[in-house]
Amino acid sequence: MFKKRLLTPGPTPIPEEVRLAMARDMIHHRKDEFKKVMHNVLNDLRYLFCTENPVLPLSCSGTGAMTAAVNNLFSPGEKVIVVEAGKFGRRWSDIAQARGLEVIALPLEWGAAVDPADVENVLSRWSDISGLLIQASETSTGVLHPGRELAAMCRKHNILSVVDGISAVGISPCPMDEWGIDCLLTGSQKGLMLPPGLAFIALSDAAWEKARKTKPRDFYFDLPREREKNASDQTLFTSPVNLVLGLEQVMRIFKSRGLEAVFAKQRALTAMVRAGVQAMGLDLLVRDFYTLGLTSVSLPPGIDGIKLLETAAREHGVYMAGGQEHLKGRIVRIGHMGYVDFGDLLAGLHALRCSLESCGGHCGSRDYLERAMAAYHQELQTKNQ
Amino acid sequence: MFKKRLLTPGPTPIPEEVRLAMARDMIHHRKDEFKKVMHNVLNDLRYLFCTENPVLPLSCSGTGAMTAAVNNLFSPGEKVIVVEAGKFGRRWSDIAQARGLEVIALPLEWGAAVDPADVENVLSRWSDISGLLIQASETSTGVLHPGRELAAMCRKHNILSVVDGISAVGISPCPMDEWGIDCLLTGSQKGLMLPPGLAFIALSDAAWEKARKTKPRDFYFDLPREREKNASDQTLFTSPVNLVLGLEQVMRIFKSRGLEAVFAKQRALTAMVRAGVQAMGLDLLVRDFYTLGLTSVSLPPGIDGIKLLETAAREHGVYMAGGQEHLKGRIVRIGHMGYVDFGDLLAGLHALRCSLESCGGHCGSRDYLERAMAAYHQELQTKNQ
Repeated sequence: MFKKRLLTPGPTPIPEEVRLAMARDMIHHRKDEFKKVMHNVLNDLRYLFCTENPVLPLSCSGTGAMTAAVNNLFSPGEKVIVVEAGKFGRRWSDIAQARGLEVIALPLEWGAAVDPADVENVLSRWSDISGLLIQASETSTGVLHPGRELAAMCRKHNILSVVDGISAVGISPCPMDEWGIDCLLTGSQKGLMLPPGLAFIALSDAAWEKARKTKPRDFYFDLPREREKNASDQTLFTSPVNLVLGLEQVMRIFKSRGLEAVFAKQRALTAMVRAGVQAMGLDLLVRDFYTLGLTSVSLPPGIDGIKLLETAAREHGVYMAGGQEHLKGRIVRIGHMGYVDFGDLLAGLHALRCSLESCGGHCGSRDYLERAMAAYHQELQTKNQ
Repeated sequence: MFKKRLLTPGPTPIPEEVRLAMARDMIHHRKDEFKKVMHNVLNDLRYLFCTENPVLPLSCSGTGAMTAAVNNLFSPGEKVIVVEAGKFGRRWSDIAQARGLEVIALPLEWGAAVDPADVENVLSRWSDISGLLIQASETSTGVLHPGRELAAMCRKHNILSVVDGISAVGISPCPMDEWGIDCLLTGSQKGLMLPPGLAFIALSDAAWEKARKTKPRDFYFDLPREREKNASDQTLFTSPVNLVLGLEQVMRIFKSRGLEAVFAKQRALTAMVRAGVQAMGLDLLVRDFYTLGLTSVSLPPGIDGIKLLETAAREHGVYMAGGQEHLKGRIVRIGHMGYVDFGDLLAGLHALRCSLESCGGHCGSRDYLERAMAAYHQELQTKNQ
């Protein structure tokens, strides 16, 4: 009766050419055929991250790359600021504490973006802070933090800006060198349209200098040694070969479209979903500073968000995500990152409307789909003028 | 003119049904469809490891699982014995040192298996040793260490036996509970016939007790928390979904054949390759205690092993591995683990013969292939009697 549509903020659907590339039989990770692929992707990843510095692939989930960042850039006892605007902000604190760092947390209401003045305030009170750990976009809410301002502020105070770009790289602009970010990382399963299992991390010159001095380093996530090995188009330990073969195809897609076109599509999809949801009479969790990869919808009181998601999946084949921790059951997160287009989101918005009503809610409009599409076209036109 | 044949000791070729399962479009790692798959593979992995305890999948290479073992079982300052019989024995020492452990190394000539008496000797001299780190089989040479005896000795001395089974699990018998191994781990890309990127680790009750007390734990590789999450058929961080889908197929193969049949095939292939190589007049690096997954061949003086491997790949499509570190260029390692059969190895032995001759070497027999096959059939018959 209907297809399955994955509209979660990661993992995201995978283009057919990528899936077929990954289905090839094994090739060896230390032989020339693979090294040629690795050579190309290492080059292309710098385009994706908008950096002149190397981008290192790691065999792990995004959290592995976050652990790699903390363990390579900071030694036990150092002090870092963590912006805790959701589940993944808190994860920074957990990782930093496991490393023995002293965490100065800036907790925010879930759905709020950090105000740079609050960070500046902490920086002016303490003289011995080593870094700021933040999300480019907080996947648990859909908030977009002011990455450019924060990175500039870190430069000014001579501390490292460490940015989790897991739901931003290839989705929402985050140009590493232009903004002066010291560490940017991401995973394979969101903007990169690949299965999970591969992560990426890049450091600025200042961050490399710090990493080389940091001891003891993590054995598995040893970035200076990894960088050295990458110079011969290999990874330090066995590469996840098939994911790298898929990545080669993904990079072809990014290069043939261009990053700007991807961001334009993301802006149009974001405008579309926000307009559709608001036309239904639902509230958006994030008002002003929102990412281009997902839209969080606050459910009216009395609506069981878990039942709503189950209904959307069972009755319409649409898989969306719910809230995490205290937002569980209270919000719906609609993913629109990676290999997702307006048609998928029309299905998604319609599934949301039907599931809302079958859970006792009310949709305040009959033309929410058309209004969503109008916002989509409007955004694309604005871009083209 | 010819097919490509991957005869390296990992990664290994991938069966078609596994590749096709991995080529499916993405499903979400926190939804029911995936949890059902995870439920099955978590169950099946215990059959593979021959243990009643849980086997934890980790998103990393085999070295990641080795790091997980050390960082969860030992705290900085503890003392461990490491059997350094090759490149991967040394890796145990590197990982242990990165964790701040005191390493008592037992270095061996590459190609030799450890004598349990030497370990006993160390154990009797020191009273404060916490563990023994060893390979079931040392992939850089093809040696098989006496796992059963060593595990029993560790039990007697009340220290933890930590076994890297990366080139053993699903290849060479290593029954965890029967032998009393405290920690057994492996990777996806050898006996498990999958791409690299997934690793597995299991602990005994004593090891779990130690892991729970070990602080600070590694954030990414936190085995007690991971075990807790596995109880709900999920992993702590994002699962490498497609590899897990492939694993489900792999476990179907193992269960339909039975582990004993896999080991019987491995014994026959090992007998075949050893007989063929010896019929050519070449020396085996490992005489007595050899694994069932790979055969290392010592090249005669004057033969350039690197050129030989290049010739075999270019002229015959056969990809074998060379020696590592000081054995580079001096040995050939023929992998015969995973999805490899006698036909692949006939091609491999013939490619070895031709490449040897084109590098100036000499093959001492015209019936080396037939003698290899005789040994293969002989071994299979012995098993059936």
